[in-house]
Amino acid sequence: MSTVQSIRWSPSGDALRILDQRELPHARVERDLRTVDEVCDAIRTLAVRGAPAIGAAGAMGLAVAMAPRRGETREAWCARLDASAARIGATRPTAVNLPWAVDRVMTRVERARAADAGIDALAAALHDEADAIHREDRAMCEAIGAHGATLLPDDARVLTHCNAGALATCGIGTALAPVYVAHARGRAVAVWADETRPLLQGSRLTAWELAEAGIPVTVIADNMAAALLRTGTIDAVLVGADRIAANGDAANKIGTYALALAARAHGVPFYVLAPSSTIDAATRDGAGIPIEERDGDEVRAPMGHAAAPPGVAVWNPAFDVTPAALITAIVTDAGVMRPPYDFSALGARRSALAPSSERAERRAPSAESAGGAR
Amino acid sequence: MSTVQSIRWSPSGDALRILDQRELPHARVERDLRTVDEVCDAIRTLAVRGAPAIGAAGAMGLAVAMAPRRGETREAWCARLDASAARIGATRPTAVNLPWAVDRVMTRVERARAADAGIDALAAALHDEADAIHREDRAMCEAIGAHGATLLPDDARVLTHCNAGALATCGIGTALAPVYVAHARGRAVAVWADETRPLLQGSRLTAWELAEAGIPVTVIADNMAAALLRTGTIDAVLVGADRIAANGDAANKIGTYALALAARAHGVPFYVLAPSSTIDAATRDGAGIPIEERDGDEVRAPMGHAAAPPGVAVWNPAFDVTPAALITAIVTDAGVMRPPYDFSALGARRSALAPSSERAERRAPSAESAGGAR
Repeated sequence: MSTVQSIRWSPSGDALRILDQRELPHARVERDLRTVDEVCDAIRTLAVRGAPAIGAAGAMGLAVAMAPRRGETREAWCARLDASAARIGATRPTAVNLPWAVDRVMTRVERARAADAGIDALAAALHDEADAIHREDRAMCEAIGAHGATLLPDDARVLTHCNAGALATCGIGTALAPVYVAHARGRAVAVWADETRPLLQGSRLTAWELAEAGIPVTVIADNMAAALLRTGTIDAVLVGADRIAANGDAANKIGTYALALAARAHGVPFYVLAPSSTIDAATRDGAGIPIEERDGDEVRAPMGHAAAPPGVAVWNPAFDVTPAALITAIVTDAGVMRPPYDFSALGARRSALAPSSERAERRAPSAESAGGAR
Repeated sequence: MSTVQSIRWSPSGDALRILDQRELPHARVERDLRTVDEVCDAIRTLAVRGAPAIGAAGAMGLAVAMAPRRGETREAWCARLDASAARIGATRPTAVNLPWAVDRVMTRVERARAADAGIDALAAALHDEADAIHREDRAMCEAIGAHGATLLPDDARVLTHCNAGALATCGIGTALAPVYVAHARGRAVAVWADETRPLLQGSRLTAWELAEAGIPVTVIADNMAAALLRTGTIDAVLVGADRIAANGDAANKIGTYALALAARAHGVPFYVLAPSSTIDAATRDGAGIPIEERDGDEVRAPMGHAAAPPGVAVWNPAFDVTPAALITAIVTDAGVMRPPYDFSALGARRSALAPSSERAERRAPSAESAGGAR
């Protein structure tokens, strides 16, 4: 089983300890985050990344940042909380897990607030709910892994994109969870990892964490995946998701859509694996998922070293949407779902912790301003 | 019109002058090559690249390397010629243009040899035939451009992969030739360039030469092409080819196949543009095209900077094969051909300069040893 832990509480519990993924695979650097600035910066610069991990990091980061300050009034603390939650929740637009997790801890705090709890009790409720998200995410990974492992043949040869492994979650990952489960059960399993330009999460992170776990991994450039699938080497494609719409359309790292087309062309099953918190019942289909566009220098300068002529125009969407029709099955902690998708059971479960309508309204403009899917 | 010249004779004619593409886009460095070692090294390390350019570079490089040496006997010169031709012809396995061009100059020399010509006359024949290849390649590019331009709408938005432009040929390119022709005629045209991992010929070379020519270009990572095609932005995909089999299957830079699948999924025409020397009538279909596998460090270390864990396994095929069924039309200097392909007219034209059966036999083992398409 993987020993990698992407995010956790620091031993004293007053900081969010992250494994800084900007430094991988060259160095294993852990950083303790204590302020909203530090948390937002870590999420924005991808020191912490992966939809489930940034959700948990947002909630846990908010909890540590909201440690009561000397002399702070309850009113001031609550105002600071609202401002901090809004800032952290809007750090990245595509993954629904981030606003979902922030909303979840805020809902918990609001209940305590309505019951006239003092600052310390409010801060404790915040910390407790963030901790629950962290624990539940680990359990969700295990469940996804168990369900997903049933889809893999013996001696499975799996192709994955980006990093939806331990580094993207609080536990053993989403797309890679079945790989870790199969490996832990002593079954042979080998992974081919798309390097995943522009930020190379596949070669930097997926290859690193699988090698750490002793699982055979072969790195390819993204544009080799179709040729690899054509060779008949691959039994299944496993990818994560940053947001899944109500109809099963799935936003994931840019390149996922191309991979789904190639898998379909070769009759290779294409599985999307994600915690149920990734499902956004409020978004009807993929066209409604905002797609983050990132700085063109990520493309111009691989690993920070300029390849293209300076200032050349770049299009750099961080995600794309794979239509449900190309997805063989969606695997969540609740099980393996096949089309047509009915997420209502999951929806009911999640709505217990759903954002208040007021909060949902507050979130809408930021999603819109991030632009529609292109 | 592009002013970039990838290969030419040095002013004195005793060297092959190349624009060193390893240095682009950072520096415009020209190098003069005079020996077989220098020529092979330039081709192997991609200082010169692109199927038509390496064909011409092989022939021209052989010609400069075969300048008669003081006191060299005719017998020694001929032995040196055979050894040099074999070495240069085997430098890279996939592009048929390289052995084709070497065979062509050798056939010319053998005629002169049969007519008892002396060393100087043999060397002159070699130089003359290599010069003809260079001139004809420029004319072929113009013809491809003229034919290809008829396929582009006004205000064309074109997607291309790798570099099949001026830098890949002796003239205005193959895939990019219609772009240069349209631009020269004052028609608006814009290009989206796949960066083309692992060696980034798209961002380093295509973006550079189009910018030099004042043609708008936008760079994307390879894995963004499918998402771009989905937006409806692109009118046509234009790619080159390193070898086209008798049935129209086309080997080209790795990633071309993935792009063809994505173009097909979105109903965007997919054109392969190449000089007729790229057509290998002796290879029935794509399965018979040897695919060069290159060093894994090209994937592990983008731009020479390590991204993946050291020593991680890599699969790094330099080319893939796009089946004829995914190709809308093949454009050569002879015109626009649509399936089912009949290359016999081109074949007749080429057979006038075809390799002798002896030479074809000599070549076979090297192609085989390079391994079949995977």
